[in-house]
Amino acid sequence: MSNEPVTVIGLGLMGKALATAFLHAGHPTTVWNRTPGKADALAARGAVVAPTVGDAVRASSLVVVCLTDYTVVRDTLAPHRADLAGRTLVNLTSGTSAEARETAGWASDHLDGAIMAVPGVIATPEAFLLFSGSASAFERHEETLKCLGNGVYFGEDPGLASLYDVALLGVMWGTLNAFLHGAALLGAAKVDASVFAPFANQWVASVTGFVSEYAGQIDKGAYPAEDASLDTHLATMRYLVRESEAAGVDTEWPALVQTLAERARGAGHAGASYASLIEVFRGTPRSDS
Amino acid sequence: MSNEPVTVIGLGLMGKALATAFLHAGHPTTVWNRTPGKADALAARGAVVAPTVGDAVRASSLVVVCLTDYTVVRDTLAPHRADLAGRTLVNLTSGTSAEARETAGWASDHLDGAIMAVPGVIATPEAFLLFSGSASAFERHEETLKCLGNGVYFGEDPGLASLYDVALLGVMWGTLNAFLHGAALLGAAKVDASVFAPFANQWVASVTGFVSEYAGQIDKGAYPAEDASLDTHLATMRYLVRESEAAGVDTEWPALVQTLAERARGAGHAGASYASLIEVFRGTPRSDS
Ligand SMILES: NC(=O)c1ccc[n+]([C@@H]2O[C@H](COP(=O)([O-])OP(=O)(O)OC[C@H]3O[C@@H](n4cnc5c(N)ncnc54)[C@H](OP(=O)(O)O)[C@@H]3O)[C@@H](O)[C@H]2O)c1
Ligand SMILES: NC(=O)c1ccc[n+]([C@@H]2O[C@H](COP(=O)([O-])OP(=O)(O)OC[C@H]3O[C@@H](n4cnc5c(N)ncnc54)[C@H](OP(=O)(O)O)[C@@H]3O)[C@@H](O)[C@H]2O)c1
Repeated sequence: MSNEPVTVIGLGLMGKALATAFLHAGHPTTVWNRTPGKADALAARGAVVAPTVGDAVRASSLVVVCLTDYTVVRDTLAPHRADLAGRTLVNLTSGTSAEARETAGWASDHLDGAIMAVPGVIATPEAFLLFSGSASAFERHEETLKCLGNGVYFGEDPGLASLYDVALLGVMWGTLNAFLHGAALLGAAKVDASVFAPFANQWVASVTGFVSEYAGQIDKGAYPAEDASLDTHLATMRYLVRESEAAGVDTEWPALVQTLAERARGAGHAGASYASLIEVFRGTPRSDS
Repeated sequence: MSNEPVTVIGLGLMGKALATAFLHAGHPTTVWNRTPGKADALAARGAVVAPTVGDAVRASSLVVVCLTDYTVVRDTLAPHRADLAGRTLVNLTSGTSAEARETAGWASDHLDGAIMAVPGVIATPEAFLLFSGSASAFERHEETLKCLGNGVYFGEDPGLASLYDVALLGVMWGTLNAFLHGAALLGAAKVDASVFAPFANQWVASVTGFVSEYAGQIDKGAYPAEDASLDTHLATMRYLVRESEAAGVDTEWPALVQTLAERARGAGHAGASYASLIEVFRGTPRSDS
């Protein structure tokens, strides 16, 4: 189905990038957006602008939705459930796994997806998209969806893509917050963020190595400190808090980092690797050791 | 000075790796450790085991120290300040920038350093070491220190390496905590950490791109939301908190992520990029916009 017609509902920052990618790949593309002006540039590139949501849904067998949230998805699509029957709905709106499961009943074939990319990298090899839900829908439309980026399918549970999504976004926020905090700290010593960034990024590449190793420890349930013990980490965490105080930058972020590690220590992991913090995040009751 | 004699004081997890690297590179290496047994394997590889700290200091013109913290460094080296005169002290013990500045007066030539590597990658291209302090000491010993990993010199302020150190360690903890939190969340849905890790690491590679872009925004002091607005982030942060609650995993970590973003929103950055959070970390007073 290399020329499968596609409908894109929602032309915000992301929806616009999705519709552009479909057009670029040669798919007849129908679009709809609440504020119609946002479709103009796409119309100039060949998109059909549907006057109503119903027209947009009926235009293609593959309907891709990218709106603010599930409430907007519900409000926008609920009146068109009859038209959605017999079509494939691919919901790329972010939401919880519970919302994804609820929405799954609306179309005869439903895929819930999450986009791990900013609009600018859609349709590049860097973009990846997570899907779960109907396996047959994924198989049938994989080729078409591929023009947005690399697709990964996690299985029939429609909630799984959303769960991966927030877990991965969490990784982004954790990394970005720590970078921004560090940039504030070094900024107080007159170091530019652009000077700090390459060091941060180089170091993050090393951190991905720790992630792989710790993942193995977590799955085995044992956290030998082959690299550095939690106590060694805790000592340097205290320095980060002290430096933050001295520079007058936020201490709440590094203090929580320290508190979480202290909880792992309190659970008996002083001599264990950093991976032992998984027990704190899991909320595992403390041991007496 | 390709065969410059080196002394290593402290043979913990890290000190042992340092001494091994010096030996491997052909440097006559003298070692000292409080608990003498830890030197045995190094002695078998050719290291000279000094019976006292004083003997260790006097054995080489380059003295590398890697102990638990600056208190231990002080207690261990203070009685030997006379012997340190005329030698180069390279302190690779972690600490605050204030402590580094204080220690700088002890040797005629002092470099303060920080090791951005776990012991296992010392002497590989992945290891990098941060130095600040005496420029002439760095120049004179750069060649020798290179056998530990790539060295970066930040300038005469001996505190700068420590500041970069904690800022970078902060990036590690932020990334690892977020990964561990995500692994706990997906673990509750029976996804193994080793299955999640490659996705997290691939995504982190994209995040390094955001870091570079945001660094430029920070230095310019303007945060246009070319990718996603803070409000879009905030919506998905709420999903992460809700999923964490539903799965019974820690909510404190994602709640702080959300709180910090809400503060940036409160400061008028709802439509700005994520980089606007730097203002929160800097403790910049809120604007009224
Ligand atoms: N931007 C990213 O980097 C990114 C990355 C991954 C995932 N996502 C997800 O993609 C989705 C869209 O994000 P975005 O960045 O494109 O957001 P956005 O720029 O704010 O666009 C929101 C879209 O939803 C529409 N909308 C809002 N309320 C509506 C309503 N009541 N009725 C009908 N339409 C309504 C908007 O229409 P109007 O034009 O009429 O306002 C617009 O098309 C979100 O779930 C987001 O989490 C975004
Ligand atoms: N491990 C890493 O991944 C890593 C990475 C970067 C930086 N670092 C930094 O490197 C330094 C050492 O870390 P490490 O992992 O090697 O720690 P470690 O394995 O705990 O070793 C600590 C060292 O300090 C010595 N020591 C402790 N108290 C002493 C005292 N009162 N008097 C004399 N010696 C004493 C220990 O001697 P004994 O053998 O007698 O106990 C041992 O040699 C720390 O500042 C750490 O932050 C470590």
